[in-house]
Amino acid sequence: MQLREVRVIPDVRETIVETLNECRVKFDYVFTTGGIGPTHDDITSECVAEAFGVGKYRDPDTVALLTRRTEERGDTMNEARLRMATFPEGSVLLQQEVSAAPGYRIENVFVMAGVPRIMQMMFQQAVPHITGGQRMLARGLAVDLGEGTIAEGLALVQARYRDIDIGSYPQMRKQSGFTVSIVLRGPDAAVLDRAHTEIMQIMRDLGGNPVEEDPDKAQASAEPED
Amino acid sequence: MQLREVRVIPDVRETIVETLNECRVKFDYVFTTGGIGPTHDDITSECVAEAFGVGKYRDPDTVALLTRRTEERGDTMNEARLRMATFPEGSVLLQQEVSAAPGYRIENVFVMAGVPRIMQMMFQQAVPHITGGQRMLARGLAVDLGEGTIAEGLALVQARYRDIDIGSYPQMRKQSGFTVSIVLRGPDAAVLDRAHTEIMQIMRDLGGNPVEEDPDKAQASAEPED
Repeated sequence: MQLREVRVIPDVRETIVETLNECRVKFDYVFTTGGIGPTHDDITSECVAEAFGVGKYRDPDTVALLTRRTEERGDTMNEARLRMATFPEGSVLLQQEVSAAPGYRIENVFVMAGVPRIMQMMFQQAVPHITGGQRMLARGLAVDLGEGTIAEGLALVQARYRDIDIGSYPQMRKQSGFTVSIVLRGPDAAVLDRAHTEIMQIMRDLGGNPVEEDPDKAQASAEPED
Repeated sequence: MQLREVRVIPDVRETIVETLNECRVKFDYVFTTGGIGPTHDDITSECVAEAFGVGKYRDPDTVALLTRRTEERGDTMNEARLRMATFPEGSVLLQQEVSAAPGYRIENVFVMAGVPRIMQMMFQQAVPHITGGQRMLARGLAVDLGEGTIAEGLALVQARYRDIDIGSYPQMRKQSGFTVSIVLRGPDAAVLDRAHTEIMQIMRDLGGNPVEEDPDKAQASAEPED
C-alpha cells in the first residue's frame, strides 16, 4: 500500500464528518486514530455514524468484557464506559488484547484508538481486511554533493525511468556532515537496480563519493547547501 | 493563532494545487513546508503559481546572492539553482540568513523550506505578516484515575464552561505509571482558573490525587485504562 495523505484534525464534529466523507471516496482505505474513549471529547464514533448516515448499536460481548475488566480493577461500569461498547451500524469489530474496547471497520474506514500501542494492535487486526496493490521496493544512496550540483543528472534519470519515483533529501548529520540522500521507489527490483547504478555513476562523475544507504534512513532533517 | 489542521501530501501536482486551493479559502493562513529546492521533485512553487493562476518571475537580488554563495563554495551557478530564485508573481520574499534561497508569502499562503532549521527562520520572517486572534491560555492537571471514572464529572464541567475546551489524554509514564492528563484551553485566565479548581476538586472527590501539570506535557502517548 502507498500512503497518500495524512490529516491531523481537531475534535470538531463537522470537520470530522466532512473529512471522513471526502477521504473515504478519494482513497481505497482510510485509517483514523483517536477519539474512541469514554470522555466527552471522544466523538469519533458519533461522527463516523453521521458520515455514513447510519445509527449506532451496543455490542453485548464488548459490554460484558468491559464490565469484567472494569470490575476486576475495583471500578464500576457506567454510561461513560458503555460508550466504548457503542458502534456505528455495519461495523466489524477489531478486537485486541491490550484494551477491552475494540476498534472497528466500517466499509473502507478503519477506526482505531489514539494510544500508539493499542492503535498498533488494532492495525494488526485490520491487515487481513486489506487488499494490497503492487509491492513497492526502495533503494537508497547518500552523496557528499549539493542538491544544485546533482539536480540536472537526477532529473535526466527520472525522465528515463517513469515507473520509479526518485526523491532527493538534504541531510546534516553529526558524524558525516552535509550529505544528500536519494531514494528510489518502484515495483521492479531489476529496473530499480539499474537506475540506482546509473545514479551512483553520475555522482562519481560529478566528483562525489556516493554510498549505498538504507532508504528508510533518508529524511529531510537538516540544512541544504544554499 | 489556533492550529486547525495539518496535511501531509505527496509531491503530486494535482494534489498540491487542489489542497492549496481548498485550504487557502477555508483557513485564515496556510503554511507549506518543503519542495522549494533545486531538484526535479521540488515542484511546490510551480504548483503555488498554478493554484493562484499567476505566472512566475526571477528575482535578481536572489539570483545575485545565490550566485555569490554558490561560487564561494567553488560550485557553479546553473539552471537547477536558478529555480530557487523563481517565484509566483505577487510573492513577498521571506529572506533569512541560513539559506540564500528565500521562502515567500503570496496572499494568505506562506511557502517555506522543508529543512526544519530553515523553515523555522522563514517562519520568524512570516510572523510580522500575521494578524493574531484572541490569545488562548492553557492550564493542565494530571490524575491517577481512569478516563471512565472521570468522564461524567469532566463532561459536566465542560457543559458549564462553553468558552473552554477540555481535553482528556491517557498517559503511561515510566516514573508515575498510569495517569490521565487533562488540558483546559480558553481566552480568560480567571474562568480557566475557576474551571481548573473545580476539576481538581472533582478528582479529589472521586478518590484521586490530582496535581497541576504543564499543559504542553500532555500528549496521548500510552495505554488507557481498558
